[in-house]
Amino acid sequence: MKLHTVDFEPVGQKGQCQEDESLLDCAHRLGIGVSSVCGGRGTCKTCRVKVISGALSEPTSIELEALSAQELGGGWRLACQATPASDCRVMLPAESMSTSQRIHVEGLEVTVPPEPAVKAYHLQLNAPSLSDQQADADRLLEALYEQYQLHCRKIDINVLRSLSPQIRDWNWECQVSVCDDEVVALGPWPNRQLGLAVDLGTTTIAGYLVDLSSGQTLAAEGFMNPQISYGEDIISRINRVIKSPQEGIRLQECVVEKLNELAASLCSEANASIDSIVEAVVVGNTAMHHLLLGLSVKQLALIPFTASTGLTLDIKACELGINIASGAYVHFPAIITGFVGSDHAAMLLATDSYQTEGLTVFLDIGTNTEISLVNGDEITTTSCASGPAFEGGHIKHGMHAARGAIERLRITKDTIDYQTIDDAPPVGICGSGVLDAISQLYLAGIIENSGRFMPDHPRIRITDNQTEFLLVDQEEEDGQSTIVITQKDIRELQLAKAAIRTGIQLLLETNGFTEEQLGQVVIAGSFGSYIDVSSAVTVGLLPPLPLNCFRQVGNAAGMGAKLVLVSLSKCDEARDIVTRTRYMELASNPDFKKMFIETSHVGKYWLRHNKREMLENG
Amino acid sequence: MKLHTVDFEPVGQKGQCQEDESLLDCAHRLGIGVSSVCGGRGTCKTCRVKVISGALSEPTSIELEALSAQELGGGWRLACQATPASDCRVMLPAESMSTSQRIHVEGLEVTVPPEPAVKAYHLQLNAPSLSDQQADADRLLEALYEQYQLHCRKIDINVLRSLSPQIRDWNWECQVSVCDDEVVALGPWPNRQLGLAVDLGTTTIAGYLVDLSSGQTLAAEGFMNPQISYGEDIISRINRVIKSPQEGIRLQECVVEKLNELAASLCSEANASIDSIVEAVVVGNTAMHHLLLGLSVKQLALIPFTASTGLTLDIKACELGINIASGAYVHFPAIITGFVGSDHAAMLLATDSYQTEGLTVFLDIGTNTEISLVNGDEITTTSCASGPAFEGGHIKHGMHAARGAIERLRITKDTIDYQTIDDAPPVGICGSGVLDAISQLYLAGIIENSGRFMPDHPRIRITDNQTEFLLVDQEEEDGQSTIVITQKDIRELQLAKAAIRTGIQLLLETNGFTEEQLGQVVIAGSFGSYIDVSSAVTVGLLPPLPLNCFRQVGNAAGMGAKLVLVSLSKCDEARDIVTRTRYMELASNPDFKKMFIETSHVGKYWLRHNKREMLENG
Repeated sequence: MKLHTVDFEPVGQKGQCQEDESLLDCAHRLGIGVSSVCGGRGTCKTCRVKVISGALSEPTSIELEALSAQELGGGWRLACQATPASDCRVMLPAESMSTSQRIHVEGLEVTVPPEPAVKAYHLQLNAPSLSDQQADADRLLEALYEQYQLHCRKIDINVLRSLSPQIRDWNWECQVSVCDDEVVALGPWPNRQLGLAVDLGTTTIAGYLVDLSSGQTLAAEGFMNPQISYGEDIISRINRVIKSPQEGIRLQECVVEKLNELAASLCSEANASIDSIVEAVVVGNTAMHHLLLGLSVKQLALIPFTASTGLTLDIKACELGINIASGAYVHFPAIITGFVGSDHAAMLLATDSYQTEGLTVFLDIGTNTEISLVNGDEITTTSCASGPAFEGGHIKHGMHAARGAIERLRITKDTIDYQTIDDAPPVGICGSGVLDAISQLYLAGIIENSGRFMPDHPRIRITDNQTEFLLVDQEEEDGQSTIVITQKDIRELQLAKAAIRTGIQLLLETNGFTEEQLGQVVIAGSFGSYIDVSSAVTVGLLPPLPLNCFRQVGNAAGMGAKLVLVSLSKCDEARDIVTRTRYMELASNPDFKKMFIETSHVGKYWLRHNKREMLENG
Repeated sequence: MKLHTVDFEPVGQKGQCQEDESLLDCAHRLGIGVSSVCGGRGTCKTCRVKVISGALSEPTSIELEALSAQELGGGWRLACQATPASDCRVMLPAESMSTSQRIHVEGLEVTVPPEPAVKAYHLQLNAPSLSDQQADADRLLEALYEQYQLHCRKIDINVLRSLSPQIRDWNWECQVSVCDDEVVALGPWPNRQLGLAVDLGTTTIAGYLVDLSSGQTLAAEGFMNPQISYGEDIISRINRVIKSPQEGIRLQECVVEKLNELAASLCSEANASIDSIVEAVVVGNTAMHHLLLGLSVKQLALIPFTASTGLTLDIKACELGINIASGAYVHFPAIITGFVGSDHAAMLLATDSYQTEGLTVFLDIGTNTEISLVNGDEITTTSCASGPAFEGGHIKHGMHAARGAIERLRITKDTIDYQTIDDAPPVGICGSGVLDAISQLYLAGIIENSGRFMPDHPRIRITDNQTEFLLVDQEEEDGQSTIVITQKDIRELQLAKAAIRTGIQLLLETNGFTEEQLGQVVIAGSFGSYIDVSSAVTVGLLPPLPLNCFRQVGNAAGMGAKLVLVSLSKCDEARDIVTRTRYMELASNPDFKKMFIETSHVGKYWLRHNKREMLENG
């Protein structure tokens, strides 16, 4: 039997694969977490991969049925069916990978030339003597000028405080980190120059440790935002602070503590010292941004929902209690408005919204969903309250995307196949699982267009006056939890997706466009990246564009933060994006209510003149 | 009897004076503390005043004896003898005023046009609405640009933190304080713009509250430096910190606490809020500067005595724990070297060393004495350890210049006249008193040139094997303390004054000059301002120049701090002074020891080719 080399991108792992071994088996053998809901039977289509180079086996009959001619022509295959026919490279899209693997992958894609705000210089100073009593700091700045023609005028006070003993310990040889015209860190020579990029979300905090000289990501990690214990969503946290300013301090402190944990953990993984982190960039929604900075949030919750500041901020890490190099800055890119933060701008940056051809919608789906319509140089942005359903909130057996959550689900006749995070026994269902479930229930004719359960399905039962569909039955699978989808769960998802679809539609209408003119829909965020796009189209969350118009970009906000960290040009670009963005307030749109009712229906449809035009199952 | 109006400068008090009333009596009636050791008998010469305009009575025979023809020609008179012959203005030199009065006077002399670093702007903003959701900070900066063409780019994080609630409380009208390109304070409109100038000395802390728009001093106060309880002199404090870094934190904290007390007290006096203080300037010697900033001091005590930094620093007040406007900076002017701080540079600034014609020596006398020789654009500076004797330290009955300290003393035959601070019963003797005592003992022939007591004076006695001279006898004046000057006290003063005289001489020699070429000697500092210059010449502390060559300038360092606070041009000038100053290390001079022995002798003498040339009593 022949052996071929298969190169899996973007994880960059290669392995030998027998000519009769499926790409799925090969990937799993190599430890790459490719999604497979149906266990390789070819029915779930969750293991889609795309050939970049080399040849694969001919498509099987299962693939011919599962994939369109267009998709097959574009190189798309099912990993469970395809085997290699030569050495080849295949691309694993984010949605085909299991959760833990995805977090890992997301850290790898900084591709700009490194041009960081903080630069390092090597100095060997002359020791002072009775005939040369120049002060230590003055000596250092003079050497920077003489050796590098650098007009540095300031030294951070914390750096100054340890300068004299340290420089003597290092025999007057050191590495100086300079930001703008200020020395922000001092270390022995040579020393690594690291940066920390953080995407501070309402639910999760993602952190990336980056080597500033190469732009390479050394470690990536995600944590839950500890503020969750003060309220799942933004509004409940803001209300806590309004009631008691002390709570504001507590909310700030718990995030700072978590960021310190994050930095320490990333450094431990990369075998680095936290003192080597000479800059941090934090992006987040406006409320998270304000809470971390200790800014007033009350006015965010009151009409007209004004941010305290939208400015780009550079705050000393020590001022915030963040333990990195003692003189380092934390850079906060500009935010767009009270409901659209720097995370959305970072997402627009990372996805090259600048260079997008044609009309594109950028979505950041969460409890609050930010939507931008980009048409050349023009960016119009809105935000809508999409609620916690997509993050598993307000769903009877809902949970965050954590171990044991059902994240993929397929219904075939009476069989229900599902995949859980980390392949652990199912303990609940996360956002992408709920979306799949409702899409599959609809396709199987178990719920109707309005979202109401059809009567007479053996898995439908009534508990506490509430109709519910049994996804996982305790008796059916020994030792597993019972997991259901209730009528109320379906309503929750309908409200959430109607808010988003309405936002997209009003953005388009206001700018004089229709859904069919859209060239691309870019979906970011932890939920948006893990959803099955065809499920999202089936439930009417997204318009029924061809599937190749959708691009799921993972934690693009985090990636944007990394870009800002690594490149001053990207930092300027982020500022420019915010300047060019026009915010559209949804609540004040007279068509909002009507549109919201229209878009709460389940099914594939176009919106035309504020009316649905159902495509199938209508 | 005719009445004339007498205007006393620089205190600016006027009063009616009968033609036969002495200026001294008139001043005392008006509450002005003019010095008078002999009680108006015309023997002590401590009440010297200078006529600026108008006519006085003809000099009395006492005045003709007490003052030289040159002095009389220059308008100098004794206040106890002179009476007004018309409306007149007379000037009270600092050394003719009692201590409490002097501190008050020192706050009044800022005479530059106000041109502060922090400027105030009045803004009336439009309130946000659903159709204008611009963030509060962005709105404020945009208005600053539109109304004042001001390109402000930053807002202090603490100002940002209170911005949103405050601006709403004030109905969108406010006063914005801008420093450079940063908003450092925000207040309701209209609001005062105050500044705090501090001279942080080893022994005393002097503070001035200044109105930045007028340059006027609103309040002035002096406190003891609380670090004294950690060691009287700099070296003992540095040694505490070297032994235990925790002590460094304690030394810093106790000064910060005192500065906060000072600011609060000054504000209370001026009926102002500490939030109205939008900038502070602190000058001090290098060790006090480093201890306040939390910089390393160990290397200050080790050869080659290097400062951590000599740079001009702008540190956020809140970073140091100083409670003024939350976004305000504390400006630390540049320091000269490890032993010559920003206080000396401030003194050079305040005394217009720039514009001095002829060769001038500037002295700042303390436990460490800084000496500058200014010749046109050239400044050469040195410092010498003059010990605590001038501040009453290491003197048997010595004390700081506080209530009850003997500050002036005259010996006539067997009578000893003295004046105490606040005219309180004598409890000890301060530096200027010790200097007077030794000078008077020498003039009375009670000590010889070498400093040794002559035998056989009724007031000389031996206690504990130590020869001592009885200044105040318990039995003599009922209920008073016994106060003596011991042989050891005289030795202490000899060592102290020899160090200073040696410093002056080596500065002159190194630059190719002799003492007789000196045009002026400017004396600053709390001790230097209160001494009787002729006593200082008599003991050989100062060269025997004509008395009108000496200028006592009070707390010129504090005045320099005020100038830097009020005027950006003066701030630049202070930086320029430091840049132009060349430091000369005394310890490495081969002539130092020999010169030191020569200059320890008591008496009036010139130094020529390293030899004394006695003028009288030689």
